[in-house]
Amino acid sequence: MKTVDMRTIFKTPDTFIDQQVKLEGWIRTNRDQKQFGFIQFHDGTFFESLQVVYSDSLVNFDEVKKLNVSTSIMVIGKIVATPNAKQAFELQAETITVLGESTPEYPLQPKRHSVEFLRTIAHLRPRTNLFQAVFRIRSIAAHAIHTFFQDQDFVYVHSPLITTSDGEGAGEMFKVTTFDFDNIPRDEAGNVDMSQDFFGAKTGLTVTGQLEGEAFATAFKNVYTFGPTFRAENSNTTRHAAEFWMIEPEMAFADLEVNMDVAESMTKYVVQKILERAPEEVAFLNQFVDKTLLERLEALVSSDFKRITYNEAVEILTQVNDRFAFPITWGEELATEHERYLTDEVFHSPVFVRDYPKDVKAFYMRQNEDGKTVAAMDMLVPGIGELIGGSQREERLDLLEKRMQEMNIPEEELWWYVDLRRYGTVVHSGYGIGFERLIMYVTGVENIRDVLPFPRTPGNAEF
Amino acid sequence: MKTVDMRTIFKTPDTFIDQQVKLEGWIRTNRDQKQFGFIQFHDGTFFESLQVVYSDSLVNFDEVKKLNVSTSIMVIGKIVATPNAKQAFELQAETITVLGESTPEYPLQPKRHSVEFLRTIAHLRPRTNLFQAVFRIRSIAAHAIHTFFQDQDFVYVHSPLITTSDGEGAGEMFKVTTFDFDNIPRDEAGNVDMSQDFFGAKTGLTVTGQLEGEAFATAFKNVYTFGPTFRAENSNTTRHAAEFWMIEPEMAFADLEVNMDVAESMTKYVVQKILERAPEEVAFLNQFVDKTLLERLEALVSSDFKRITYNEAVEILTQVNDRFAFPITWGEELATEHERYLTDEVFHSPVFVRDYPKDVKAFYMRQNEDGKTVAAMDMLVPGIGELIGGSQREERLDLLEKRMQEMNIPEEELWWYVDLRRYGTVVHSGYGIGFERLIMYVTGVENIRDVLPFPRTPGNAEF
Repeated sequence: MKTVDMRTIFKTPDTFIDQQVKLEGWIRTNRDQKQFGFIQFHDGTFFESLQVVYSDSLVNFDEVKKLNVSTSIMVIGKIVATPNAKQAFELQAETITVLGESTPEYPLQPKRHSVEFLRTIAHLRPRTNLFQAVFRIRSIAAHAIHTFFQDQDFVYVHSPLITTSDGEGAGEMFKVTTFDFDNIPRDEAGNVDMSQDFFGAKTGLTVTGQLEGEAFATAFKNVYTFGPTFRAENSNTTRHAAEFWMIEPEMAFADLEVNMDVAESMTKYVVQKILERAPEEVAFLNQFVDKTLLERLEALVSSDFKRITYNEAVEILTQVNDRFAFPITWGEELATEHERYLTDEVFHSPVFVRDYPKDVKAFYMRQNEDGKTVAAMDMLVPGIGELIGGSQREERLDLLEKRMQEMNIPEEELWWYVDLRRYGTVVHSGYGIGFERLIMYVTGVENIRDVLPFPRTPGNAEF
Repeated sequence: MKTVDMRTIFKTPDTFIDQQVKLEGWIRTNRDQKQFGFIQFHDGTFFESLQVVYSDSLVNFDEVKKLNVSTSIMVIGKIVATPNAKQAFELQAETITVLGESTPEYPLQPKRHSVEFLRTIAHLRPRTNLFQAVFRIRSIAAHAIHTFFQDQDFVYVHSPLITTSDGEGAGEMFKVTTFDFDNIPRDEAGNVDMSQDFFGAKTGLTVTGQLEGEAFATAFKNVYTFGPTFRAENSNTTRHAAEFWMIEPEMAFADLEVNMDVAESMTKYVVQKILERAPEEVAFLNQFVDKTLLERLEALVSSDFKRITYNEAVEILTQVNDRFAFPITWGEELATEHERYLTDEVFHSPVFVRDYPKDVKAFYMRQNEDGKTVAAMDMLVPGIGELIGGSQREERLDLLEKRMQEMNIPEEELWWYVDLRRYGTVVHSGYGIGFERLIMYVTGVENIRDVLPFPRTPGNAEF
């Protein structure tokens, strides 16, 4: 007999009622009465448990009664309708075979564990309801992003991880080396001789794939990256990890309006796919993690995202400046409290803010006619603040070179990036979205450590 | 008027014949006669060129005539059927607007360039036919892999890149550090004090995500990774890169036969999707890169992959041992010449070889009853040799621990991996496929540097 997945049974129960099936999986709980026992059974393919009922007609009833949590078993039995129970069917066991024993020391006993404790057993925590929900949704979201772009013939580009470019001030970088720390090579002047390192130069882990994405956008028009990025920042917050994943689309012949259109469509598409493909997981998170989650996600899918300028935002915010810990003045970045005021209290929907002061933004953003702002946009969402940041890129060679000089960006290192403006430059735009930030938003989970399978933070790279 | 993509026109030309359209893109070639000119036009969305015909009725005819290769232009004109020409339609320009100029120094002039030269302009080479084909196929293949697994509800796991585990001998690792090389901290005994590094320990870039994948397979049953992996090996070959991407599915309740079933289905699925979605690219590669490509790919999709044991393979090979540079004897790994003899001359199809001698394989592979072999499998394909390597994993705690001791694998570092065998261990299997190896196979391109967007090899991490 072929083993059937729980997902198949839960998705099409009618075809299984009164049928004999074979399942393989693990015991979540096992409670026995004199002549009966009940196992909450999981095989990893579906969020809910399947109730397995067994009786003393089992030849190994006494053994089964004592099975520990997490024992792996094979069950053969019949799916039976249970019209009066919480779940519409259960599995009445005919045989239960032990595949792998467990012990009473199994750390995940059926009680509530703190997320802090669960981080110390990152290899086991995906077996809990919380992490079943988070990591299934993470997988669905990743695929939805690929499908969104591929359906529109965007080319997926694997931008490099190891790089000689220093990330243009986007953040602190990790060094990558094969040097023996006990024997660092030095040149005749006594300086560290980077030419003797593996790549013959100083290399680090990338903080963005955008610039390489731009190169590919001038070949394929529409491209996106989806890969790991790194920050060597010693900040122990709930929103920062040393290693995280980022999606960066880049589009030629696209201005800032198109950029916002794509960001809005992508976000709605991903949330819609999660609602469709993970209803049980969303319901669980809505009940136990964030009671506003479902409402928030459903509202997002059907809302029209507002679009305002930075000037308009500052005008709105300065009227209520006494509400903020840090009052806003023109020329500063918006803080989370300002962003959330706009989304949560003024517009009650996601908001794009565009045309930021150039001095708080990167060298590659397109300079506006006013001489003071650049064609940047941030997408702010209720309850979180910034989820996406993007811009139209400066496509004019002379203006780009001038801005690089002003901001001390070394052109000799980015000659190839500047080259893109020499040979048929085009209007182009793109944005970046931190994948973990997105997963926090769509699950309600508030610590980035709990949406990464094996998080890397200062002092922690175990597993 | 809205800009239309070339891909849309080429996929549904009938709806555009005699219609006015607007396109934006780049000039590939521009040749003029007295009263006419012809532009080979590309916008990055489709492999083939669109012929743009212009005449002296253009107000800027004299300017257009002189436009350099790679100038970006906007063309408004009419799609006209050309029943007697090579291409079924062309674009008769009414207006041509210059968007971004180019210069005669543009490095990609319309002639054949060596791949070695093109690697020095990795930011521009995606604009050539060869790299348009390779990188479009790379993108399609990546998405096909995701879709193959997601359609079967496999969970995509982002295994970590930075790791304290040393990769169990799978290869040399890059170090990741924030140490200042001029000021490496030392403890009182004078040893390098790794506790002062960013993660408080010695960390490197991962060589595999398999072990973390196994942890998730004991929670979700079926999972896969798709991410970058690294090797700090100073080997300058056409098949090795320091940074490359790998796919590693891992399946609980699956033995070696199921493992081979999935590997075979996945390979056929990906090749089928490439044939469907990139016929123009495959045709080009078949003509200019590898004249056996199309035949090879079509044969693969319809063939039944053979399955033999290592013992059977050695028996076949020893009969013709005088043909090989290195004769095979039982107990050794198969070399590429042996693998290709099996695929190309004996079976004329892909071949799985299973049950390899345990001493040439990793500690985690399941030990067979004969005491000499392990449940490993390699998938060999014609023209290449090994494309996939996998195994059933040792799920028996005592046998795993014994093997780790024999092979000096430190259990205190992999306690969490061993844990998976303590609490309801299950039969499970998985495999790894190097994504670049796959792309080389499906494009016919022979150097790994030419299937990676920005390859990293010893001495080279530019762009």
